[in-house]
Amino acid sequence: MMRSFERFPAWMPATALLDRAGTPARLRGLAPSELVALADELRELLLYLVGRGGGHLGAGLGVVELTIALHYVFDTPTDRLVWDVGHQAYPHKLLTGRRDTLASIRRFGGVAPFPSRDESPFDAFGVGHAGTAVSAALGMSLAARATGSGQRVCAVVGDGALTTGMTFEALAHAGDLGADVLVVLNDNGMSISPNVGALAKRLPSAPDAPVDGVAGLFETLGFDYTGPLDGHDLGALVAELARLRGLPGPRLLHVVTEKGAGYLPAASDPLRLHAHSPSRSSAGAPRYDALFGDWACAAASREPRMVAITPAMREGSGLAGFAAAWPERFFDVAIAEQHAVTLAAGMACEGLKPVVAIYSTFLQRGFDQLIHDVALQNLDVTFAVDRAGLVGEDGPTHHGATDLSWLRCVPNLMVMAPADGAECRRMLDFALDHPGPVAVRYPRGEAVPGDDDAAPLELGRGRWLRRGGEVALLCFGAPLAEAREAAERLDASLIDMRFVKPLDRQALLEAAAGHRLLVSIEENSVLGGAGSAVAEQLCELEKSPPLLRLGLPDRFVAHGDRRKLLEICGLDAAGIEAAVRARVTWRDVEETSLRSEGDE
Amino acid sequence: MMRSFERFPAWMPATALLDRAGTPARLRGLAPSELVALADELRELLLYLVGRGGGHLGAGLGVVELTIALHYVFDTPTDRLVWDVGHQAYPHKLLTGRRDTLASIRRFGGVAPFPSRDESPFDAFGVGHAGTAVSAALGMSLAARATGSGQRVCAVVGDGALTTGMTFEALAHAGDLGADVLVVLNDNGMSISPNVGALAKRLPSAPDAPVDGVAGLFETLGFDYTGPLDGHDLGALVAELARLRGLPGPRLLHVVTEKGAGYLPAASDPLRLHAHSPSRSSAGAPRYDALFGDWACAAASREPRMVAITPAMREGSGLAGFAAAWPERFFDVAIAEQHAVTLAAGMACEGLKPVVAIYSTFLQRGFDQLIHDVALQNLDVTFAVDRAGLVGEDGPTHHGATDLSWLRCVPNLMVMAPADGAECRRMLDFALDHPGPVAVRYPRGEAVPGDDDAAPLELGRGRWLRRGGEVALLCFGAPLAEAREAAERLDASLIDMRFVKPLDRQALLEAAAGHRLLVSIEENSVLGGAGSAVAEQLCELEKSPPLLRLGLPDRFVAHGDRRKLLEICGLDAAGIEAAVRARVTWRDVEETSLRSEGDE
Repeated sequence: MMRSFERFPAWMPATALLDRAGTPARLRGLAPSELVALADELRELLLYLVGRGGGHLGAGLGVVELTIALHYVFDTPTDRLVWDVGHQAYPHKLLTGRRDTLASIRRFGGVAPFPSRDESPFDAFGVGHAGTAVSAALGMSLAARATGSGQRVCAVVGDGALTTGMTFEALAHAGDLGADVLVVLNDNGMSISPNVGALAKRLPSAPDAPVDGVAGLFETLGFDYTGPLDGHDLGALVAELARLRGLPGPRLLHVVTEKGAGYLPAASDPLRLHAHSPSRSSAGAPRYDALFGDWACAAASREPRMVAITPAMREGSGLAGFAAAWPERFFDVAIAEQHAVTLAAGMACEGLKPVVAIYSTFLQRGFDQLIHDVALQNLDVTFAVDRAGLVGEDGPTHHGATDLSWLRCVPNLMVMAPADGAECRRMLDFALDHPGPVAVRYPRGEAVPGDDDAAPLELGRGRWLRRGGEVALLCFGAPLAEAREAAERLDASLIDMRFVKPLDRQALLEAAAGHRLLVSIEENSVLGGAGSAVAEQLCELEKSPPLLRLGLPDRFVAHGDRRKLLEICGLDAAGIEAAVRARVTWRDVEETSLRSEGDE
Repeated sequence: MMRSFERFPAWMPATALLDRAGTPARLRGLAPSELVALADELRELLLYLVGRGGGHLGAGLGVVELTIALHYVFDTPTDRLVWDVGHQAYPHKLLTGRRDTLASIRRFGGVAPFPSRDESPFDAFGVGHAGTAVSAALGMSLAARATGSGQRVCAVVGDGALTTGMTFEALAHAGDLGADVLVVLNDNGMSISPNVGALAKRLPSAPDAPVDGVAGLFETLGFDYTGPLDGHDLGALVAELARLRGLPGPRLLHVVTEKGAGYLPAASDPLRLHAHSPSRSSAGAPRYDALFGDWACAAASREPRMVAITPAMREGSGLAGFAAAWPERFFDVAIAEQHAVTLAAGMACEGLKPVVAIYSTFLQRGFDQLIHDVALQNLDVTFAVDRAGLVGEDGPTHHGATDLSWLRCVPNLMVMAPADGAECRRMLDFALDHPGPVAVRYPRGEAVPGDDDAAPLELGRGRWLRRGGEVALLCFGAPLAEAREAAERLDASLIDMRFVKPLDRQALLEAAAGHRLLVSIEENSVLGGAGSAVAEQLCELEKSPPLLRLGLPDRFVAHGDRRKLLEICGLDAAGIEAAVRARVTWRDVEETSLRSEGDE
């Protein structure tokens, strides 16, 4: 019987069994009868560590027993265990050598938020986006077949991952090939928000519910279905996994778990328990997602054709209020970014004005649909691209580091980057009224309020904020506050460019004519982004000052506090100032040395 | 009873019924008893027109009866008919006002290869990539619900489209919402190559086959399943569609058709009949796809870890020979680009060296997986990106016009563009041996043979082909032959840049130091591509000559002969020469006028 907890433990709990089971190999030395007590220890430790350090909690609590059973039965890390998404991998990390460091999870330099191949040989595949596990596991299984290694492969997927088409593609292929792969469906009836989608509705939320349709679906795809099994019954899990591990072919074990199991407050509010933040300030400026949600409600009032679409990010995108106020104009399509974009295209064909609220990193999943279904047909769809730039603790799988680069090359698409909250609202209004496709990309976190009385938006025009000396800063979007500070210290000119596409060529020419150095600033890769658009224009000129492009580097940026990461990337005021001074100094030195040579 | 034909009709057939049924409204005035004869006329006309003009044939022949029945029952264009992919839309085009122009299909200025909203109000949604129809139709249905228009919506999807995850996402969402949408599953047992995937295997290839699993799958997703129905039985089709049109909720009608029905040669070789080319020369240089296929066979011999993956493009990618020679190292994953890429990632984790053969336009579907699963983990996957640039007759849905822009911004990814066949082979070898992710992008069609004795590849280095006067042409990939001709006429320097990433900065600086104008040339959008990479570097210099970026324009390029399209885009030798001369002339004029002012 699982032990339940009413609150986060205040003190590091005693963990006698866990101490003995310091590695999966040693875990496999425990007696089966000891595993229930081990689960209690693991759950208490997880609560203690997340209570102190923060992180994702609900998913991990739900798979304590499953994780133990998997490592008990499978010969990890030789056998491959692939976790889909990976929010649920905290118990896995605790059992595979990261117990002493887990309190640092999600912090800069600390344990990664998701499984990561760089971190541990037990993390067979790095994850973050839903739906990749069956594909990856199938690839591993086929490699084991090719090399004759005899390794077993197991993918653990949530019911949320089942709603993404990619999982379906992988299941169908695995079934077709008769590959030796075990898929454990961890069914807790939720992804982050409660699941939507016809299939998810037919998954039983408890053992003994009817499962004919679901079992039939997997059988049709070529899988042997087993379940549903109580995912908190360690004895049953171990027995069933041991049986399934030895079988050939595609097998699916359907396990029903309770998100947040063993932590009583989770039962009353499972959504809040998705993640825990121990000490986040709730004061401060409004966040961009909340601002977007307020805007969406206002837009729905003024524009009867407006509808909102989200791929399973109702809360994250700030649309919970909208969903309550306008249920018939709100569409949560599940973790189905491809479908989300083309659904919007279909609606726009009929005169609706859909707004697709989507994180930058997830829009990568709908990139083909954005080009092929929306932009090519020049349809009236607004993309509210949230979490553009560095997202912070969720790390490189979730950073929106390149959207300006891959959006800017799409014909017909207008691309805007607001510098503050007021500008974001104006841009969203502008996008909604514009009859073609528009992307408005804004970052995660708090929005500088901005000036509601600022100059109105004009298509393809930026605004001059400061006239300075030899240097002009051309800022795209959110780094503006930092750029403004740097401009003061450098006595530089400053332009809020507003539009990444079409670019304000007039402002550019004016800046080029009156300054000795131009500096582009963006929270996007320096390859192909807004600075690159500036470079394209400047290079056409017969004579122009050099351009210094500041932005995100051409490498995957780690996880950690967003402000810390921006500082490391040189996108804070001090970094901008230092980069400009380094460039100017270098130039002066060179000019001096050239002059010296001439004087000789 | 359907009339069958042994060959393409030599003369325009008589079409008395078709003449009366010139529009769908007039078609609906025919008696039900006249429809079979109408189908015979339509089939004969289709054979005559495609026999003369070329185009896709098999899919259209298979849906002659279905197309008539749909327009007979549905009130098109008020009711919305959405064809998935659209290869099968030729009969639809003939029945909806494009009879006199269909012979021009796929030619420049002629009828579009797929349904196109710009072309006809009967083309409710523009298509080209598989799997978009149910999403679009659902969007239209939800819009009809919102506006109360009473319009009916029907999507026609092939069994191939069922293998793509996006269709699954859309079916699940439609089922969840209980939306009023009819999906006609046109099951001919093939997509282009015979279908793969567990689900496709379970679709019956004939009426009366057992369908429990398939029906159950759709029922599980919330659809009312009807079928299978003989798709060539007009009476049954009309009756069943009329019944289904009036019903609410998500309905699926499973229709079994024969690809190429009514054309006897199709029965013996359905694959060849996918498309018909009346007068294509089979001589000439080898095509890039054939070259790739030969390379893949040789690579498999020398590198035992190499495997090849294709998303349903075995023939198109040139892998038919490889599949026959190395069946256990060949993976056709169906129309599942997302899965294809992550499958490769999983294989690479285990030490295999997967080569993903994929068209540029379809890699857009796997973009997130390329970033999140391959590049982020720096895995050893080679992308053989075929059909990069303008594909010609398949038009804007299939052009690979932007891949350099969205590949270049991905960290860890190396990007190469071969200028000829010999270089393509060397680059593929280089990519296979390189331990990280690499994309080699090459165009559709014939490969200039190239020089097998050319300087060996060196990471990030181009090669100087010509030393000329004031202008330097920096060429990326396939336009090299045309650029060489232009260089001769212009007495320009010429560099085969080879690498888009990492860029040859040394060659760039050398060119900038010794010339008065640099010109980048690429078969990719001028926004964010290779020329943009050059601009980024040049702009950092204190002093550099201006850069003229030649490439594809920032708009969707129409369909038509590939050479013709390249000419229109100015990427033939004459166009390159003219663009350079226009730029140089303008500069001389300006300098002259500046000198004149100084002289006064």
